[in-house]
Amino acid sequence: MPSTRPLFVNERQDSEDRDVDEDTALLGKQGSTPAQKNWAKFWREFALFTWASLATAAVIVLAVYSQHQQQRTHPNNGKGVPKGKRNLIFMVSDGMGPASLSLTRSFRQFQDDLPIDDILVLDQHFIGSSRTRSSNSLVTDSAAGATAFSCGSKSYNGAISMLPDHSPCGTVLEAAQRAGYKTGLVVTTSVTDATPACFAAHAHMRSEEDLIARQEVGDHPLGRVVDLILGGGRCHFLPNSTSGSCRGDDDDITKLAQEKYGWNYIDDREGFDGLELGNELDRRNLGHIYPTLEEMTQTALTALEEATRDSEQGFFLMIEGSRIDHAGHANDPAAQVHEVMEYDRAFEHVLGFLDKSSTNGILIATSDHETGGLAVARQLKPPPSYPQYVWLPEVLGNASSSAENSYRRLLRHVSAGDDNLENFIREELVRKGLGITDATDVEIQSLIDNPELGSPIFADMISRRAQIGWSTHGHTAVDVNIYGSRGSHALRGNHENIEVGKFLRDYLNVDVQAITDELADKSKSFVASGVNSETWAGKLPSEESLESMKYGDGVSQSLDLDMLQ
Amino acid sequence: MPSTRPLFVNERQDSEDRDVDEDTALLGKQGSTPAQKNWAKFWREFALFTWASLATAAVIVLAVYSQHQQQRTHPNNGKGVPKGKRNLIFMVSDGMGPASLSLTRSFRQFQDDLPIDDILVLDQHFIGSSRTRSSNSLVTDSAAGATAFSCGSKSYNGAISMLPDHSPCGTVLEAAQRAGYKTGLVVTTSVTDATPACFAAHAHMRSEEDLIARQEVGDHPLGRVVDLILGGGRCHFLPNSTSGSCRGDDDDITKLAQEKYGWNYIDDREGFDGLELGNELDRRNLGHIYPTLEEMTQTALTALEEATRDSEQGFFLMIEGSRIDHAGHANDPAAQVHEVMEYDRAFEHVLGFLDKSSTNGILIATSDHETGGLAVARQLKPPPSYPQYVWLPEVLGNASSSAENSYRRLLRHVSAGDDNLENFIREELVRKGLGITDATDVEIQSLIDNPELGSPIFADMISRRAQIGWSTHGHTAVDVNIYGSRGSHALRGNHENIEVGKFLRDYLNVDVQAITDELADKSKSFVASGVNSETWAGKLPSEESLESMKYGDGVSQSLDLDMLQ
Repeated sequence: MPSTRPLFVNERQDSEDRDVDEDTALLGKQGSTPAQKNWAKFWREFALFTWASLATAAVIVLAVYSQHQQQRTHPNNGKGVPKGKRNLIFMVSDGMGPASLSLTRSFRQFQDDLPIDDILVLDQHFIGSSRTRSSNSLVTDSAAGATAFSCGSKSYNGAISMLPDHSPCGTVLEAAQRAGYKTGLVVTTSVTDATPACFAAHAHMRSEEDLIARQEVGDHPLGRVVDLILGGGRCHFLPNSTSGSCRGDDDDITKLAQEKYGWNYIDDREGFDGLELGNELDRRNLGHIYPTLEEMTQTALTALEEATRDSEQGFFLMIEGSRIDHAGHANDPAAQVHEVMEYDRAFEHVLGFLDKSSTNGILIATSDHETGGLAVARQLKPPPSYPQYVWLPEVLGNASSSAENSYRRLLRHVSAGDDNLENFIREELVRKGLGITDATDVEIQSLIDNPELGSPIFADMISRRAQIGWSTHGHTAVDVNIYGSRGSHALRGNHENIEVGKFLRDYLNVDVQAITDELADKSKSFVASGVNSETWAGKLPSEESLESMKYGDGVSQSLDLDMLQ
Repeated sequence: MPSTRPLFVNERQDSEDRDVDEDTALLGKQGSTPAQKNWAKFWREFALFTWASLATAAVIVLAVYSQHQQQRTHPNNGKGVPKGKRNLIFMVSDGMGPASLSLTRSFRQFQDDLPIDDILVLDQHFIGSSRTRSSNSLVTDSAAGATAFSCGSKSYNGAISMLPDHSPCGTVLEAAQRAGYKTGLVVTTSVTDATPACFAAHAHMRSEEDLIARQEVGDHPLGRVVDLILGGGRCHFLPNSTSGSCRGDDDDITKLAQEKYGWNYIDDREGFDGLELGNELDRRNLGHIYPTLEEMTQTALTALEEATRDSEQGFFLMIEGSRIDHAGHANDPAAQVHEVMEYDRAFEHVLGFLDKSSTNGILIATSDHETGGLAVARQLKPPPSYPQYVWLPEVLGNASSSAENSYRRLLRHVSAGDDNLENFIREELVRKGLGITDATDVEIQSLIDNPELGSPIFADMISRRAQIGWSTHGHTAVDVNIYGSRGSHALRGNHENIEVGKFLRDYLNVDVQAITDELADKSKSFVASGVNSETWAGKLPSEESLESMKYGDGVSQSLDLDMLQ
């Protein structure tokens, strides 16, 4: 931290010119010792993937500190974890439930003409399952779900590493950083979203993304705890006087990050809105302009391995396949299969890294919860009709656009006053985009009449034809799968999600309770820039706002008779 | 078989008097040696549970043969299975997918005021998952699902231990019987239903229940292969000139069983229709008149342990929790939680048996498929409303009748011309039966107007209030859980369902291929009583009938706009 000299930062900190075409110029700064040659190679790859990453990530916040920082000794805890240096990669498939695997596996077999027993890499590393309920609901949200992993504690829906009594709990990432590990976060959504936030920030409610951004760069009771962040969501980092900001104040967190906490902040594409970047299905069709989760994973692993090459400690990296959850919320099975396949490739990449690495390491992967109530079959006609025992992967194979992307295109044409909207919908969005050639007039008219419902209508058109069912646009309570590489046998079987969190700290052999104690002490007097000590983690939630995290807009109990003819 | 003297059979074979009040009289036939004292004890328990069983099982077909029959030697196959005598209990939770566990666990915690970490016995023995697709559909039926277990082969939906080329495949039960094991089947549905049928019969289509009944008692190319059957469905055993028969011919299979194959057939309650006996939820409220799956399990384990006490070989017992599937088909979450809890108790009972037994043994439990597309959360208002992150177990706790039972009561009152039907529905069926106090007029009127849709309407009233989702009244393709006792490590992780079948034969160290070869040979010339050699396994299915096992009554692709407001 402040006592150590930022290594990578120096390389670019003085340069105002971040033109990506000049990435090779950076190499000129490299020296000629073997270690420096490694750096040259690293920078080459690094710069490449950073550039590519920009296309999905509206903000790339990056800092990798010197590998020569002070080492801390820590005894082995005798729980069978390896002695000495080790790396831990923890992957979270946000919103991926058990049904997503069968869906994706069979889709892939169909699409690539593979035999019945050709399975995903994930399938080959399935070891157990995780029970996901939170402290205040049978159905968790991503905040309580990630707090279970980061702190090893159950908490309420909405909690960002806060306990039910609203005191902050130390996280495995914070404890790892204190023990001398390098730490990283890779996500395909906003870096201030609940899952990454829970590892490097504390907030009473997940909606406090302005405060979370501040904490993530280092304005945190413990100082800066993360070394590398790749992801989207720069709007919470930009002052609200700037175009593209969504902050409530005029603080420039990118400036704070660079000037006070020594970050190298890279963000080269003005006006690029991360939320509009689409998912794997859309990216696939854009000539690989956009980086995949696998490429971001490779970038992070390379950076962290280099940064810890001469260190006595390894690294802790959290990688989230964030957009599986988005496909679940959208009830879009075509988008989902591509997200899961990409997550599977990133998982395989990490396995390959561990195989090649000279440092001991482990990969643990699980989900925080299921999203959508996905069912891999769907009855189209209600009783007394008999259900069908099929689902149709070819329907998903015909789609070249997600429902979300089709919806955005629809809205643009509606806004532009397209006077041939019906034809655009029928030909461009439905026939070419969704691959649906038998759209009914009722369906097309519903899109014309209700463009604001375009996303669920498009998703429903795909889902019905594929005979894929959904029960909600929110989360469900089914247990989620746990996957692991060699050495993960302690997570075999069925576990409470907090046991996954406890496994992480045990593997790294770090003291999370000491961090919790330190937070209790420091948070009383901690004053973040421009924020007083009482609100550094946001306001205490009211009972109403806690309930609102479970209940949306009231309970409807009326019978849908149309479902019963 | 014919060369061995039936032991138990003698005890009752001559008696025409099957009055259950006389069960103690049977004890008078016992001798006084130590072995005979064990028999006396066994008979006491046995008779007790047989009587109790009759209440759920319209037919109890029973034969346990002499423990002194010829022993066969068989070498250890070196796959880590125990040497020498061993027992294998294989449990099938028909239709239970991953979501059923979270549903039942949280319901039980709510109902019994248990802590968050109080879990099911099944949860504590979770080891892996099974991929369920059949050879001709991504969504299996119970026949193809059970054929994967019995034969270790993928086949088409509808196949009763028949391969895709329509030749019979040897089953693990047949091979076990040939190797000297005692064999048993316990189910809570008809014994001619697909799951039990696949272990002891062969048919081109599952609908051939008349032929299946015949084969199960011993009119089978290999002779009698089962020693003990407990279950319902006697209608396929009774001649069609008899009340309660559903056979297409006038053959009395109960007579054939007793006279030709030495069975002891017990069926004391005339006019008792097994299909109307309700499920665990209904039984629970009938003062324990009806036996539970746990009690039937205990009966079978006691009988088989006694029958193999002095044998060099142990037993193979298949136990099916058949009615979890029924609750899934009915989309009835209140019925489902009680079925799963009862299955959990039966599972625990088997574990206790294995712990106490002096013979090596193992318990493997899995499902053939998921039923219903159960989602443990449900969005009641469509977009743009926001989904809720809850489900409400108290709604299930308020129900004291299944939807199926309420439906039958409704039909009886409609048939009887009840002139106060609305009041009966409102007070007896809905308020007292379902525990619903806020039924709407629209719901009540829909029951009056559409009594034939009573089952789905009642189930929907419960499911919506509990916020539990369903996608179909049929099956889905999600992987299902595998559970195991000590020694089941080969089934850790994710497996094709046929690997479960292969584990069973490996554990017993029996030669299933030899049975397949013998069936190929004998089935050419085999003539069952009254059935010629070409049709002993039923007619070959047409392409249409194979397709009809996947597709019901046509594909509807119309958009349900009401779901989108």
